[in-house]
Amino acid sequence: MFDNTEDSKTKLSELGEFGLIDHLTQHFKIKHPDSTLKGIGDDAAVIDHQHKTLVTTDFLVEGVHFDLSYMPLKHLGYKAVMVNLSDVYAMNAEAKQITVSIACSNRFTVEALEEIYAGITKAADLYNIDVIGGDTTSSVKGLQISITALGEAKEEDIAYRNGAKPNDLLVVTGDIGAAYLGLQILKREKEVFKVNPNSQPDLTEYTYLIERQLKPEARKDIPELLKKLEVKPTSMIDISDGLSSEIMHICKSSKVGANLYEDKIPLDPKVISTCEEFNLDSTTVALNGGEDYELLFTISQNDYEKIKANPHLTVIGHMVEEKEGIHLISRMNTKIPMQARGWNTVDEDE
Amino acid sequence: MFDNTEDSKTKLSELGEFGLIDHLTQHFKIKHPDSTLKGIGDDAAVIDHQHKTLVTTDFLVEGVHFDLSYMPLKHLGYKAVMVNLSDVYAMNAEAKQITVSIACSNRFTVEALEEIYAGITKAADLYNIDVIGGDTTSSVKGLQISITALGEAKEEDIAYRNGAKPNDLLVVTGDIGAAYLGLQILKREKEVFKVNPNSQPDLTEYTYLIERQLKPEARKDIPELLKKLEVKPTSMIDISDGLSSEIMHICKSSKVGANLYEDKIPLDPKVISTCEEFNLDSTTVALNGGEDYELLFTISQNDYEKIKANPHLTVIGHMVEEKEGIHLISRMNTKIPMQARGWNTVDEDE
Repeated sequence: MFDNTEDSKTKLSELGEFGLIDHLTQHFKIKHPDSTLKGIGDDAAVIDHQHKTLVTTDFLVEGVHFDLSYMPLKHLGYKAVMVNLSDVYAMNAEAKQITVSIACSNRFTVEALEEIYAGITKAADLYNIDVIGGDTTSSVKGLQISITALGEAKEEDIAYRNGAKPNDLLVVTGDIGAAYLGLQILKREKEVFKVNPNSQPDLTEYTYLIERQLKPEARKDIPELLKKLEVKPTSMIDISDGLSSEIMHICKSSKVGANLYEDKIPLDPKVISTCEEFNLDSTTVALNGGEDYELLFTISQNDYEKIKANPHLTVIGHMVEEKEGIHLISRMNTKIPMQARGWNTVDEDE
Repeated sequence: MFDNTEDSKTKLSELGEFGLIDHLTQHFKIKHPDSTLKGIGDDAAVIDHQHKTLVTTDFLVEGVHFDLSYMPLKHLGYKAVMVNLSDVYAMNAEAKQITVSIACSNRFTVEALEEIYAGITKAADLYNIDVIGGDTTSSVKGLQISITALGEAKEEDIAYRNGAKPNDLLVVTGDIGAAYLGLQILKREKEVFKVNPNSQPDLTEYTYLIERQLKPEARKDIPELLKKLEVKPTSMIDISDGLSSEIMHICKSSKVGANLYEDKIPLDPKVISTCEEFNLDSTTVALNGGEDYELLFTISQNDYEKIKANPHLTVIGHMVEEKEGIHLISRMNTKIPMQARGWNTVDEDE
């Protein structure tokens, strides 16, 4: 619907580079005037953080990270912001600014870019983020989005990956595996659509799974919650590549091992029923699915009382000495060594 | 030579995403330990700037911003860094950190990415920059590089685009037009090569022009020089899209007009002779060529004595009231209104 085939749509070349950037960014209002001293409109933005500055960047490429046949452009803009904010929250920090660079081929119209920016704007509004700069350019093929997020935290609050100690508890936020299953539903519907373009699928029952894939929410609330609970994680990471891969990152950086309890992994009931429908093992999906954008962290056992009643947080295991290795303790109480997976292994063609 | 056709080359998939990032970034040493608290290796980098932080980002796309048939990969990595640093220097600031995101298709090998990173590393070493993060991913087609640069400056030193006043002097660094002509030489040789692949062109006489195109240097020295001269520019911008476009940016932001004197525009003798060879008007090339990465700034007339003897700086005009407009004063002393050009106008197929 946003392809450059309808005469009523506006070609990118009609506005030119500067006109296009002005057009797309004119609605951004500065939300942190004390921190964002200069946003869009100069050679560089100027920011002023009272504490330390966090910087992270992610690159989303059409055909690799997203498929526009089931990813609406507005959701794409929203998700591209979430992916980056999630990395700031994973440092136990507050996200404050982003820059947005977009390259797209002339198959995209001004209206298509407006949709992407509508999603970016919605994300920026809901998460209280200033869009302080970026670049809009043409590409030979497809759409690429590169976002850099900036955040702020007191030095003593920052949670790195390398602070986990043996006996620390391993905690995950929310539930996991749903985003991966949402993608499987969307792919299945795409195949159905190819065979029968008139099919009217009713996906209502899969709403939660599909939303987790198309419109993930980064856990802005968790650093705030941890502050309120007076808990400083000893290590933290976000779950973008699957639980198993993230546990291994923490273990490698912290030089520890881990025991993960299969029966503790938080799964939404819809994840369990859809795994049955797709004949998938729900633990495999949770361990290797990815794109959940939940947070995984470790805390000292002394902090257990502070978090145990919280519905957002689930203790799923504990850290051990490095030489003991990384294991999944199955429901049958067998100890299974965990393998490095993640990226391009569950799903080669994604 | 870096295509994925030789068996001796390493396919990207052999290393995997994490292995590849580790492999490419293992050589980066932290140069600013007081400012770069955490570089590559966590969800986000952590930086600590004593003063204000500058942030800028640029997206370079194969087939749009560069052509690998005449741009060596190492030079591309170097130039991608320069383009971003230039925007920090254009704020009269010191550049300190960059993040680097690269997307490339499987036509590129690990050795090709190593070449790009060799150029990035060289630039980072020469310009005293920490590479603090990034992303390496696959793309469906071609190569895309997105870099974000971070810098630091005291608030009172930062030069914006919007501070120029009527009667301020308009100053440019170095000489301009050479990068555009370098591109014309390279394009001409590409056409010759297509007709006769055995031709051995001698481009020695064009070395300066080609270097300005393939290996531009950002003006790190200028903010340092201005500090030494005790000159604070009233406005500043870097010349990426051509002198005329940049003058118009300053005029628009500062709500002033300008008179630019054609006979003052600093041109290298090789620019003049090559313009004759290509039957191009050298003023047009200087005004609209772009990619010079020199700095353009305005200063109060009171500061003229401080800069007048400096070989890096040339006064090329002065600012006037907004209502007087923006004019080129030709060698024949006629007043010609300047037109907005730049991006995709001199050179539609670039």
